[in-house]
Amino acid sequence: MRKRRVCFPITSRAYYGRSRLLIHKLHTHSGIDLQLMLGGSILLDKYSSHIAEDIERGGFTISTSYFNVIEGGNHVAMAKTACLTALEFTNGFHSIDPDVVVICGDRFEQLAIAMAAAYLNKTIAHIEGGDVTGSIDESVRHAITKLAHLHFVTNDDAYRRVLAMGEDPRYVFNTGSLDVEVAASVTTSLTNDRINGYGVGHAVDITQPFLTVIQHPVTTETDNRRHLETTMRAIAALDMPAIWFWPNPDAGTGEMSESLRHLREHHAAITEKIRFITNLPVDEFIALLKCTACVVGNSSAGIKECSFLGTPVVDIGVRQQGRLNGEHVLRTGYDAGAIVSAVRAQLRRGRYAPSHIYYKPDASQAIVDRLAGIELYTQKRFCDPATAGMRTS
Amino acid sequence: MRKRRVCFPITSRAYYGRSRLLIHKLHTHSGIDLQLMLGGSILLDKYSSHIAEDIERGGFTISTSYFNVIEGGNHVAMAKTACLTALEFTNGFHSIDPDVVVICGDRFEQLAIAMAAAYLNKTIAHIEGGDVTGSIDESVRHAITKLAHLHFVTNDDAYRRVLAMGEDPRYVFNTGSLDVEVAASVTTSLTNDRINGYGVGHAVDITQPFLTVIQHPVTTETDNRRHLETTMRAIAALDMPAIWFWPNPDAGTGEMSESLRHLREHHAAITEKIRFITNLPVDEFIALLKCTACVVGNSSAGIKECSFLGTPVVDIGVRQQGRLNGEHVLRTGYDAGAIVSAVRAQLRRGRYAPSHIYYKPDASQAIVDRLAGIELYTQKRFCDPATAGMRTS
Amino acid sequence: MRKRRVCFPITSRAYYGRSRLLIHKLHTHSGIDLQLMLGGSILLDKYSSHIAEDIERGGFTISTSYFNVIEGGNHVAMAKTACLTALEFTNGFHSIDPDVVVICGDRFEQLAIAMAAAYLNKTIAHIEGGDVTGSIDESVRHAITKLAHLHFVTNDDAYRRVLAMGEDPRYVFNTGSLDVEVAASVTTSLTNDRINGYGVGHAVDITQPFLTVIQHPVTTETDNRRHLETTMRAIAALDMPAIWFWPNPDAGTGEMSESLRHLREHHAAITEKIRFITNLPVDEFIALLKCTACVVGNSSAGIKECSFLGTPVVDIGVRQQGRLNGEHVLRTGYDAGAIVSAVRAQLRRGRYAPSHIYYKPDASQAIVDRLAGIELYTQKRFCDPATAGMRTS
Amino acid sequence: MRKRRVCFPITSRAYYGRSRLLIHKLHTHSGIDLQLMLGGSILLDKYSSHIAEDIERGGFTISTSYFNVIEGGNHVAMAKTACLTALEFTNGFHSIDPDVVVICGDRFEQLAIAMAAAYLNKTIAHIEGGDVTGSIDESVRHAITKLAHLHFVTNDDAYRRVLAMGEDPRYVFNTGSLDVEVAASVTTSLTNDRINGYGVGHAVDITQPFLTVIQHPVTTETDNRRHLETTMRAIAALDMPAIWFWPNPDAGTGEMSESLRHLREHHAAITEKIRFITNLPVDEFIALLKCTACVVGNSSAGIKECSFLGTPVVDIGVRQQGRLNGEHVLRTGYDAGAIVSAVRAQLRRGRYAPSHIYYKPDASQAIVDRLAGIELYTQKRFCDPATAGMRTS
Repeated sequence: MRKRRVCFPITSRAYYGRSRLLIHKLHTHSGIDLQLMLGGSILLDKYSSHIAEDIERGGFTISTSYFNVIEGGNHVAMAKTACLTALEFTNGFHSIDPDVVVICGDRFEQLAIAMAAAYLNKTIAHIEGGDVTGSIDESVRHAITKLAHLHFVTNDDAYRRVLAMGEDPRYVFNTGSLDVEVAASVTTSLTNDRINGYGVGHAVDITQPFLTVIQHPVTTETDNRRHLETTMRAIAALDMPAIWFWPNPDAGTGEMSESLRHLREHHAAITEKIRFITNLPVDEFIALLKCTACVVGNSSAGIKECSFLGTPVVDIGVRQQGRLNGEHVLRTGYDAGAIVSAVRAQLRRGRYAPSHIYYKPDASQAIVDRLAGIELYTQKRFCDPATAGMRTS
Repeated sequence: MRKRRVCFPITSRAYYGRSRLLIHKLHTHSGIDLQLMLGGSILLDKYSSHIAEDIERGGFTISTSYFNVIEGGNHVAMAKTACLTALEFTNGFHSIDPDVVVICGDRFEQLAIAMAAAYLNKTIAHIEGGDVTGSIDESVRHAITKLAHLHFVTNDDAYRRVLAMGEDPRYVFNTGSLDVEVAASVTTSLTNDRINGYGVGHAVDITQPFLTVIQHPVTTETDNRRHLETTMRAIAALDMPAIWFWPNPDAGTGEMSESLRHLREHHAAITEKIRFITNLPVDEFIALLKCTACVVGNSSAGIKECSFLGTPVVDIGVRQQGRLNGEHVLRTGYDAGAIVSAVRAQLRRGRYAPSHIYYKPDASQAIVDRLAGIELYTQKRFCDPATAGMRTS
Repeated sequence: MRKRRVCFPITSRAYYGRSRLLIHKLHTHSGIDLQLMLGGSILLDKYSSHIAEDIERGGFTISTSYFNVIEGGNHVAMAKTACLTALEFTNGFHSIDPDVVVICGDRFEQLAIAMAAAYLNKTIAHIEGGDVTGSIDESVRHAITKLAHLHFVTNDDAYRRVLAMGEDPRYVFNTGSLDVEVAASVTTSLTNDRINGYGVGHAVDITQPFLTVIQHPVTTETDNRRHLETTMRAIAALDMPAIWFWPNPDAGTGEMSESLRHLREHHAAITEKIRFITNLPVDEFIALLKCTACVVGNSSAGIKECSFLGTPVVDIGVRQQGRLNGEHVLRTGYDAGAIVSAVRAQLRRGRYAPSHIYYKPDASQAIVDRLAGIELYTQKRFCDPATAGMRTS
Repeated sequence: MRKRRVCFPITSRAYYGRSRLLIHKLHTHSGIDLQLMLGGSILLDKYSSHIAEDIERGGFTISTSYFNVIEGGNHVAMAKTACLTALEFTNGFHSIDPDVVVICGDRFEQLAIAMAAAYLNKTIAHIEGGDVTGSIDESVRHAITKLAHLHFVTNDDAYRRVLAMGEDPRYVFNTGSLDVEVAASVTTSLTNDRINGYGVGHAVDITQPFLTVIQHPVTTETDNRRHLETTMRAIAALDMPAIWFWPNPDAGTGEMSESLRHLREHHAAITEKIRFITNLPVDEFIALLKCTACVVGNSSAGIKECSFLGTPVVDIGVRQQGRLNGEHVLRTGYDAGAIVSAVRAQLRRGRYAPSHIYYKPDASQAIVDRLAGIELYTQKRFCDPATAGMRTS
């Protein structure tokens, strides 16, 4: 029997990290022919050579890869990157002819890829639908849901929402979060030598309390630079060592990066306890979350991975607004004083007990089993949520 | 005060026809600066010069126009056309900087344009969301809903579904159908000379009973050619004069057009009572629907315009499956015998009383009023349908 | 030793036809790994399935194929088609990593492909450089020469011009014309049944004198429609049966096709002795040139293939202006009377003796030998023609 | 009378700087309607806001601007950037419909733009054709010549070569270099405060002898990183203060930038006398060339501007190989010892007398006069250089 061809488009390093267990299981499944397609920012990553090696070590083959990130760091560049990505992935799909295309999360280029796959009549599997957040991600995520045929959600709220949107309950599965499954599986520990081998700036002693800052652009806002500088003011006021991650390449990243670069080069006093890091391998990233005193910013890792790890989090602004979160999260607005207070409260409180709101064991296996075995279809039909609700009760 | 800039991307002749009243009212509204953008198949239409003249006569100006239809008539061409359209419209939006982008219906390129507009943080108004049909249109329509901020639906079922999908009831409006409003406003009548001046083939005497066939590709099916030929066999068996419209340029159109051309040139006996027409001006199209004995095929005009006009319809296959319809519609599968029987039943039955399921007077005015006056926003947030349901009850 | 990878981008059916011997020899050469890439109009050809079969029968494999023709038949569509082609072929080259890219002739998309290949540091081999003609082909051809590293020209004039342009005489070879080599090799003969199985219109009796009309757009002119109709008037006045080939898809083809369609459908009397054909397999095309009384129009086949075949030709307008021609060609302007007179003169004169201005035996073998054996380089350097002239004397 | 529309596509900051006099004169000419189109790296420049302001201060209006640089800094990104640029400029040309498109120099995206303009039947004016250099620029420059209709060359050698390539002597003009005209016109002087306000690294005292390093990628080479580090070794060995310009964004820039960043951050001792600067406004750049002790690298400014300024230059490698140069240039290979020796020789020698090989007064006025007055044509025709040579003798 012909193996089922499962295509996995990877466009960011973060997705690769959190999908490693899933990719590995797809690769070794006897009924699946895994097709990896690379595009977008993953090819531009300073560590992309490591990823390529990682992929080769895993015995995976890359079906095709496309350079398609348009420079600018603004909304025009973001929209055109999405369009060019989708155009090129159309050629890729045409060439390798997958049965299923796996779309992860809510990044802007993933919707574009999902659209292309839908137009080619591919069955689309979506991972992490149904969540509610801010930024353009909120629109992107639900639009992908309405193009997708199979839904692997990470929590009960998301499950309920995907059904409400008219998806067929026979094809919606709460498998828990892949990110959290990876977080739960990591046993790596981190050393001072190791972490200070990455990035630039101050050396941070991770055996002493330190903060971790991850603040990405909110694409629907126009004052990302100001918000970043508010956080910087708070971190400076807290006067603690900090690991600061570079913002991801969404619209707004241009002005944020410019600000960070300028602060670092011309205002050394403000940043003198900070180490700036672009990226970490996923294992070391999880190890870092395990030992940091508090995560500050607006990363989904603060909401999801940290819920399981029990790491205190101060979540700033609207990017994660509406997302289901555990009690380890304190939310604040773009206000330096509020951020300082919240971080201090978390430092006093210390680590939390693990929460399982995003965690199920074997999330990746549950997804692989469905991708391998479920009957595939392409013509979608709106499922009346009233009926659907009854059917699943 | 600065006028509100409302951008109307027009990509198909059909949309221009049904939106004429709306476009006119947007153009003449004192608080609105109308920006027309043209792309896609409308620029390739044999009658596009007429449209250009029509537009100029109306005093409208075209902000920009893009040739971006990729040839092939297959899924790859369709997907790439969508991507190229979105890439170019991104440039257009960047240049003319609209406040609101109006997205019509459920065509594949409109989703791509909506995606681009969303990434540029434009407020998106969607007309005709919430319906249920077959083909890729079903996925496209709901994905647009999840990107759009303002929703102008055409019937109660659609209204309910848009709320179920998590849209905010403050921004969802049932204004009735623009198509039906246009149909209700047309007073043009048609003559034999006029209709036989269009297209090629047999002259049809419209003072005698004749059929009208409109069968478009179903992009999610692979046997469009066979389905077309099934309908052809039924029409030949019915042995009545017929006006047959060329299929629209969706994926599958290539093989369908090829079949029609081949039948016409090499099997004259089968097509000897048929006149083949590419397109009609919207007024004459409505006039035709008013005088035809029965509409056969899978056009939405059979469901919507004909509900108001009372024209009997035989709807074939899945393209309109799930769409709310009046009693003037008999539905059949891809079966020549069933089609023949259904058409005969409709011919015996004759015209129906007008239905108002898709009709409200002043649909276009209702839309214009909201586009001009409503407060605009960009950050979407999923609205729990339970709550929403209560709020609107 | 690694085989040398020779990539052959094919974008039009005509190029495939005339390159068949070359492709076959590249395919069977033990030191060459042939990479076929398809794009452009060849994929849209009604007979492309025949080509695909032909390719498979030959044991060739298609490395990749791209749908990238933008509809419109005008200059904008032509320019954008070239750009999209080059963008996609860049991905293809990146993926299959050829050592040499073979560029044929002077079509607009071939320059775009050559540009992409040059930017990827591929060695470029150009076939048919150095000729002089009209239309945009004139600019395209010489611009390709200035990007190419190996030059296979078809005649002495061309050889001299390529050196004048600063190319290195060590890499310029007059191998004769592939088209003419193919023409010389064809033994197929044509029957009435066979030819009248193609196309639409009047059945032509090829055992009696008949004309063959091939008139393509001149992209640098704005009155292609009028020029076409001038030729039509001349053919009608000559009152002889004619095989009329559809214009190729260059800018201007839209209005020419529209005119032909309109004439055929609404002015039957004018076209009543004409059969309209889109394309013929190359063998049958050559067979047709052998038996037609006169070729009328502006095709390069009239200049090149017919020089060897001795078929009388009336060449109209500027498209072939400046191209080296045998005495079998009478040149006229866009003037119906002049065309009629020239055709009558040719009919009185009858067939010519074969000319060898474009013919060398084993043109394809000479090219293959160089592609397989010559040392490849990428950095070009202008070669002073004075010096070069001496070096080759 | 309708003004002649002259379109000036600007894609790099360097071109804007050297064309300022020309742009100003085009703008103020009563018979010319200047259309500025922006794209490529100029929009990404850190100083692009300054350029935008400069443009606005000059009263120029930007017709349109396109973000179209694809990230990667490699050959694939370069080729695709060219294709996307050409696709988007096609839309721009279609929209603003220029009579003449001015193409500058030999950058890869300028050939793509010239191709698009040629396919739209625009008259193309090329500035700086006919030179001989290394890198892909060599191919690009001559290919543009073969697409262009009007040629403004900068020196006698170039004039002779453009004729040799078959261009019509009626349309080839030696006007001298715009860059050198700008250099001759600059009176700005530079201060320590001013120069050290730019960039990062060591403060350089420009009242004492210092070097200026400008080393760009050679796109046809694969060891740009190694060549850069060879130069770095030489500069370190010379142990003098140096201003080092960041490489321009051609293919190869990625690895070069990476190397510079790494050296700067991890090998402070090597770079401790170096200031790294991305760009300077053109006036200050010229002022810098006037006061530096020696220019080291492979910039055309070393060959052209410095010939007039009399600044000693050590030109490394093949990038400028073949370009006409004055005696102020010493050429070396990629060899640290040779570079050190050559720089020392230049330091001993000191400044040179101005050379006029690239200089004519009023270069920009000579170009404007032709652009305004010359009869425009589009159909090119190869001009036999033998005849042409006689005609101009």
